[in-house]
Amino acid sequence: MLSSYVCSDPNTSRVCVVMVGLPARGKSLMSQKIVRYLKWRSISAKAFNIGNYRRKANAHPSADFFALSNDEGASLRRLAAQEALNDLVSWMDKEGGRVAIYDGTNSTKRRRAWIAEQLSQHNIHPLFIESACENDEIILNNIMDVKTTSPDYKGVDPQTAAKDFINRIEVYRKDYESISSSEMISYLKIIDAGAQVVVNKVKSYLESHIVYYLMNLHIKPRRLWLSRHGESEYNVLGLLGGNSNLSERGMMYAEKLPELVANAVGDQPLTVWTSTLKRTQQTASKLPYQQIQWKALDELDAGVCDGLTYEEIQQKYPEDFAARDENKFEYRYKGGESYRDVVTRLDPIIMELERQENILIVTHQAVLRCIYAYYMDVPQEQSPWMNVPLHTLICLEPRAYGTIETRISANIPAVSTFRAKGELPQHQEPDGQNA
Amino acid sequence: MLSSYVCSDPNTSRVCVVMVGLPARGKSLMSQKIVRYLKWRSISAKAFNIGNYRRKANAHPSADFFALSNDEGASLRRLAAQEALNDLVSWMDKEGGRVAIYDGTNSTKRRRAWIAEQLSQHNIHPLFIESACENDEIILNNIMDVKTTSPDYKGVDPQTAAKDFINRIEVYRKDYESISSSEMISYLKIIDAGAQVVVNKVKSYLESHIVYYLMNLHIKPRRLWLSRHGESEYNVLGLLGGNSNLSERGMMYAEKLPELVANAVGDQPLTVWTSTLKRTQQTASKLPYQQIQWKALDELDAGVCDGLTYEEIQQKYPEDFAARDENKFEYRYKGGESYRDVVTRLDPIIMELERQENILIVTHQAVLRCIYAYYMDVPQEQSPWMNVPLHTLICLEPRAYGTIETRISANIPAVSTFRAKGELPQHQEPDGQNA
Repeated sequence: MLSSYVCSDPNTSRVCVVMVGLPARGKSLMSQKIVRYLKWRSISAKAFNIGNYRRKANAHPSADFFALSNDEGASLRRLAAQEALNDLVSWMDKEGGRVAIYDGTNSTKRRRAWIAEQLSQHNIHPLFIESACENDEIILNNIMDVKTTSPDYKGVDPQTAAKDFINRIEVYRKDYESISSSEMISYLKIIDAGAQVVVNKVKSYLESHIVYYLMNLHIKPRRLWLSRHGESEYNVLGLLGGNSNLSERGMMYAEKLPELVANAVGDQPLTVWTSTLKRTQQTASKLPYQQIQWKALDELDAGVCDGLTYEEIQQKYPEDFAARDENKFEYRYKGGESYRDVVTRLDPIIMELERQENILIVTHQAVLRCIYAYYMDVPQEQSPWMNVPLHTLICLEPRAYGTIETRISANIPAVSTFRAKGELPQHQEPDGQNA
Repeated sequence: MLSSYVCSDPNTSRVCVVMVGLPARGKSLMSQKIVRYLKWRSISAKAFNIGNYRRKANAHPSADFFALSNDEGASLRRLAAQEALNDLVSWMDKEGGRVAIYDGTNSTKRRRAWIAEQLSQHNIHPLFIESACENDEIILNNIMDVKTTSPDYKGVDPQTAAKDFINRIEVYRKDYESISSSEMISYLKIIDAGAQVVVNKVKSYLESHIVYYLMNLHIKPRRLWLSRHGESEYNVLGLLGGNSNLSERGMMYAEKLPELVANAVGDQPLTVWTSTLKRTQQTASKLPYQQIQWKALDELDAGVCDGLTYEEIQQKYPEDFAARDENKFEYRYKGGESYRDVVTRLDPIIMELERQENILIVTHQAVLRCIYAYYMDVPQEQSPWMNVPLHTLICLEPRAYGTIETRISANIPAVSTFRAKGELPQHQEPDGQNA
């Protein structure tokens, strides 16, 4: 729905998110998350990191390079800012970009006024996002986790890197001006990683939705557990959709799941989310945690094809079968849904997952692919084709520079429901015989 | 989804929204909107207006009654505040209320600390919402539109009432303390009707969702136009769901709609929203306005009953037919949706409608009922039974104290698709013959 609406509002349809903040305030992490989220919602988005442009001229600067009073440094940094902005505008003009992120410190009023002026010439609306943080624990964590792995410190030992980096922050701080409402710009100010938030003159739907997304983020460590339901009677028969019970092997998975989860999770608190369909609830039925059912986690609705086999679909609706293979993300079953529709209805789930800490989701193949695609940044054209086996627990652990994935197999046989492009599913029994 | 999640978090499941602000800042209007929205989302909510309690002791106070220095006034107002709070807590305890609104000026730090203390004793989390506005135009509009109709000024002429009311605001202003972050409370501060917004320590999903809702509100005048699609081939045959074309009479409605809309709307800009189904798009096809398709506006999914007549449903699924009559809002078709599911997927539509000015929605019977129920505050048990005729344009104009409704018939005959509880639909041809 986001994308359909955004198209309708040409005046605010091109947005540049301008990051503002001292180093080690999580700006690049936020930039990456915004890009990943918007791409998942089918909105073209790209981040332009000014530091990467500056490194072309000076790969390993010392802290005082960043002082306003350092003429050579200031001039190189201005040049990098201009180059990054040129590329950003060019990407919007030539490649139809909708949301660009201009990632840098952008720490003075003068710099921000210059950016706003440049963007307005190209009919791009700026949304400034300031991360203001004076919580030493958060800053030190950022420095240790992220910044010592920065390209600026390649080959430098972490202690030296951290020390130099703290100096660099101090240099920046001398000239730093926090955004004030007198600047007459649209902005979001995030104070101490979300403890307080200020929203000023944010009007368009797209900008408001970006703001809402950022307001849901937190920085506490968390893990997300994903599992498909156990093998169902419909899986065994090779039928799509429905609301069947688990097969005997599916029930074995349900029986084993508590042990699997306990070993992996330890004694941390956990909440289990299932869909409203029987096969996910039966799969979760033995788990000793609080459970919540979400209609939004129900399987992709196959409409008229619900209850058919792929062979039957190919026979009854050969054109649809071919069209779906052509563009599986956009293809909408007659009377049913497309992957894009599923992503739209999963939006509140993603917002809520960002707010939570440890969640186990027991859901369905297509839904799991969409959630996985959000976390692992899987392109739209690939996500509907991912092979997600039955009877396997997946753990995703989001970190600053990517998400760590672990897969734990229950070693309980199940049919394969995977179908490669242009093929019918193998639908093999685990012993290799066709079912 | 909201409700399912809220149930899961007992620690933050009881929220008291405490309004803060000088008179004529739109607090009561916000209170009413929050209550209406939450009830629409199946969350029990109720507003407690301190002024109503105070009026029991002093129905027509003069402005200086409200000075902190007026001992009698202060004591009566304290008493009213305590009484309102007692009733609020008692409603939560005895009737399982989830969100109470404590509507008053609550204009000093001391008063707010007292409220927070009282609520914490009952395990109710306070969320303070301050409306801070120094825009004279907005304030004067509030005074003229709303406050001269206040019970305090019953029988007083509007000029005198307005003058006294402005004095009352000045009396309050002397002691007014805006919320500051040093108060260590969860709050939302809305400045000049949303030009700037400050969010502090808002953590739970329910509170965050209330904040998001309030951030989407604006106070510009707007009108919402609603229409069902024209009569469809399925309507004529008495079949549910599907994706059929318009009937001949349905096409006549599509042809006439531009004139109907132009006469009613005038030359104001308008945007048309349809569902992704053919019958709504065909209905809107002659309208000379920008059009957007939303999957979220598709008709309630009848699952296995899609394409059947009510008679067939009664024969094939007699228990379901009876269960649906018993609780039509909650009943979920096998493989399909309930009215509650439709409300959940309409949430982003309502948010977006609140952001917009003039929108025409061409959609389906059940979806229209849900949208209408939000604006007209129709209780859940009634909304699925509302009769919304075909070939009729409905105009809703939200005002401070309610929504004005106008219905414009196109005078083009159509079958009736209305079915009363416990009955089969009449499904009469417009000439009175059964189809």
